[in-house]
Amino acid sequence: MTQPSDDAVRLGPTNSLLDVAGLSVGHVTLREPGWLTGTTVVLAPDDGVVGGVDVRGGGPGTRETDLLDPRNVVERVHAICLSGGSAFGLAAADGVMRALFDDGVGLPMGEPGQVVPLVPAAVVFDLGRGGDFAHRPDHETGRAAYEAAKASRPADSPVNLNVTSNSGDLTVDERSRCEQGVVGAGAGAKCGGFKGGIGSASAVLPDGTTVAALVVLNALGEAVDPATGELYARRFLLPGELDGLGVPSEPEAEAAREQASSAPPQLVGRPGMATTIGVIATDATLTKAQCAKLAGIAHDGLARAVKPVHTMFDGDTFFGAATCEREAPDLAGFHGLLDAGGDAVTRAVAHALLAAHTVTTPAGTWRSYREAFPSAVARLVAPAAARDAADAGGEP
Amino acid sequence: MTQPSDDAVRLGPTNSLLDVAGLSVGHVTLREPGWLTGTTVVLAPDDGVVGGVDVRGGGPGTRETDLLDPRNVVERVHAICLSGGSAFGLAAADGVMRALFDDGVGLPMGEPGQVVPLVPAAVVFDLGRGGDFAHRPDHETGRAAYEAAKASRPADSPVNLNVTSNSGDLTVDERSRCEQGVVGAGAGAKCGGFKGGIGSASAVLPDGTTVAALVVLNALGEAVDPATGELYARRFLLPGELDGLGVPSEPEAEAAREQASSAPPQLVGRPGMATTIGVIATDATLTKAQCAKLAGIAHDGLARAVKPVHTMFDGDTFFGAATCEREAPDLAGFHGLLDAGGDAVTRAVAHALLAAHTVTTPAGTWRSYREAFPSAVARLVAPAAARDAADAGGEP
Repeated sequence: MTQPSDDAVRLGPTNSLLDVAGLSVGHVTLREPGWLTGTTVVLAPDDGVVGGVDVRGGGPGTRETDLLDPRNVVERVHAICLSGGSAFGLAAADGVMRALFDDGVGLPMGEPGQVVPLVPAAVVFDLGRGGDFAHRPDHETGRAAYEAAKASRPADSPVNLNVTSNSGDLTVDERSRCEQGVVGAGAGAKCGGFKGGIGSASAVLPDGTTVAALVVLNALGEAVDPATGELYARRFLLPGELDGLGVPSEPEAEAAREQASSAPPQLVGRPGMATTIGVIATDATLTKAQCAKLAGIAHDGLARAVKPVHTMFDGDTFFGAATCEREAPDLAGFHGLLDAGGDAVTRAVAHALLAAHTVTTPAGTWRSYREAFPSAVARLVAPAAARDAADAGGEP
Repeated sequence: MTQPSDDAVRLGPTNSLLDVAGLSVGHVTLREPGWLTGTTVVLAPDDGVVGGVDVRGGGPGTRETDLLDPRNVVERVHAICLSGGSAFGLAAADGVMRALFDDGVGLPMGEPGQVVPLVPAAVVFDLGRGGDFAHRPDHETGRAAYEAAKASRPADSPVNLNVTSNSGDLTVDERSRCEQGVVGAGAGAKCGGFKGGIGSASAVLPDGTTVAALVVLNALGEAVDPATGELYARRFLLPGELDGLGVPSEPEAEAAREQASSAPPQLVGRPGMATTIGVIATDATLTKAQCAKLAGIAHDGLARAVKPVHTMFDGDTFFGAATCEREAPDLAGFHGLLDAGGDAVTRAVAHALLAAHTVTTPAGTWRSYREAFPSAVARLVAPAAARDAADAGGEP
């Protein structure tokens, strides 16, 4: 493992969205017979986060994206709802809104308690993957995902995992782990010929600013070089991240090529059969317009990890968010933040692929990358161990 | 009344959105104690309408607007949901989606019944106007408004009120009347210092193309010239429309000016306290991009009827829709359609103001234009009578 230098971008302590202090993540996974879907909520501190959005897929399903236009007045949003269920899954945001309202959190409109929670949302297509087309998240799923996110907040303080403190003192407890793979909005996700899911990654810039991404990887395209089976994202991983991840053996790559060529053609006659969505966030102070720019750069990171993306069968959408706990970056600082942020999305795609396991339902089998390419992951240090190694070695 | 010439724009038979054959409108009005809100659904034929959107207010609340981007793949939407309840009211679209799904209507995704209904939505702020801030439309309200729209479809045929037929044979029955005023999404609406509500108007171009608008008038700004009390929209009315509508007497105008100057200043410290939304539709064949252009021109019509509009306290949003029952217009034809369409929005604002009545709830009293300026409406021919006169005289 290469020892990172003082001026290098490093992994955050959890290498996930949770490294942006103040954010929490809640998943609800619906895996009963006939079901394979769920909802993920990214919960902001009670006073919200500055938000932006960039919609670049050809078949998006979204809600409350217009208020994020930098010309418009609302600056902060209180949660971001990511859901399976195609357009039906937008109902999950209702549950998040109602739960936030019950907790008195939202844009103040007058008397105490008179608030309007602002919950932008996007959805992925996973209808029918559990076996029943009509099984999809609803407002109760959204409320439960919100409650899960709220429960994962550290009890006695806002999340404080600032890596500028002595990393030897950090305790990354269970509440601070960001569950990935076949969970939440990623439960029914696929990516090309493999099982998709939730992935997350973070980066800490030399000045201590954190930028992190969480993706619901459900792309029409492939995250895997068809010639070799190598993950496109592999070359963009940070030192200490997924150590030991390799290029598949030639026999495995050959087998995958044969399987792909003999597979029935994907149903591409209908729009909205895929879609990758996510959140890219930072603790820096950004304007709404800068959050929209950050969301735009997230799509570049997605393009490096998946090919093709932004197709007419994807509704790829990223939300940008800034907790504004740190100072506003200057132009050079914002440039570095964007570059590392795009990479965080690329890397999150690798985590989604590697965290996913093979899933079989009455509707079919979605094979995991790990199962297809055991040689590529044979020497992979377990994610937790890799992270611990990074924690131990990441401070000069 | 001026007799329209052959080459003039004329009123449609109902002078409402219903003149676009195939569209139906359903309102649910929530007026129980503590409530003053509702939902309005514009229902398309089962195969949908081509849709576009233009969001120009500074505090919008929207859903499924990104799919209407002309770059994106989905061409047709199955209903448009307009609702009170601020962002909470977006839940009404869930009910519309679920009801459409139950009816098997939506974008086909595979087997019969496997459909995703596409229901763009926008909301207005009316929270608390009935007395209780927490009373707002939900998914059940949306479903009921959908059912009302469906029930209002003519039983044995798609709506067919084509004015190129002999107008003497037209029977505009109750199902074909578009209820206006304090109903549906306009129940809690206000417009400046007066009660707002739903208004609708239509125009038939010389070539027989129909363009029509339905607005939920809930603007921060005024639809009334403060110097005279005259409706800004008055000068844009068509021959035979609101015949007898006058300029208020000077004593009434003076009284209104005094009341406005002594009124407590409006609460303008919070975003989203207002918002005008609506649908502008035609039976011409338009592309998605042309529907977006039509929605943009609707905002010009709004600007002529209300001042100011598109403020940071309004989330003004218009959807454009084309049933494509007639041929695609050439450039000159589209120019004429846009001009008449903008005017239909202007005129619909006048209808909203004049159809509204004074409403008092525990939260306050919203005085109607009619009550404030009885001299202006003293000689007004009742809308139904005016329409009948237009029906009788509108054919050469």
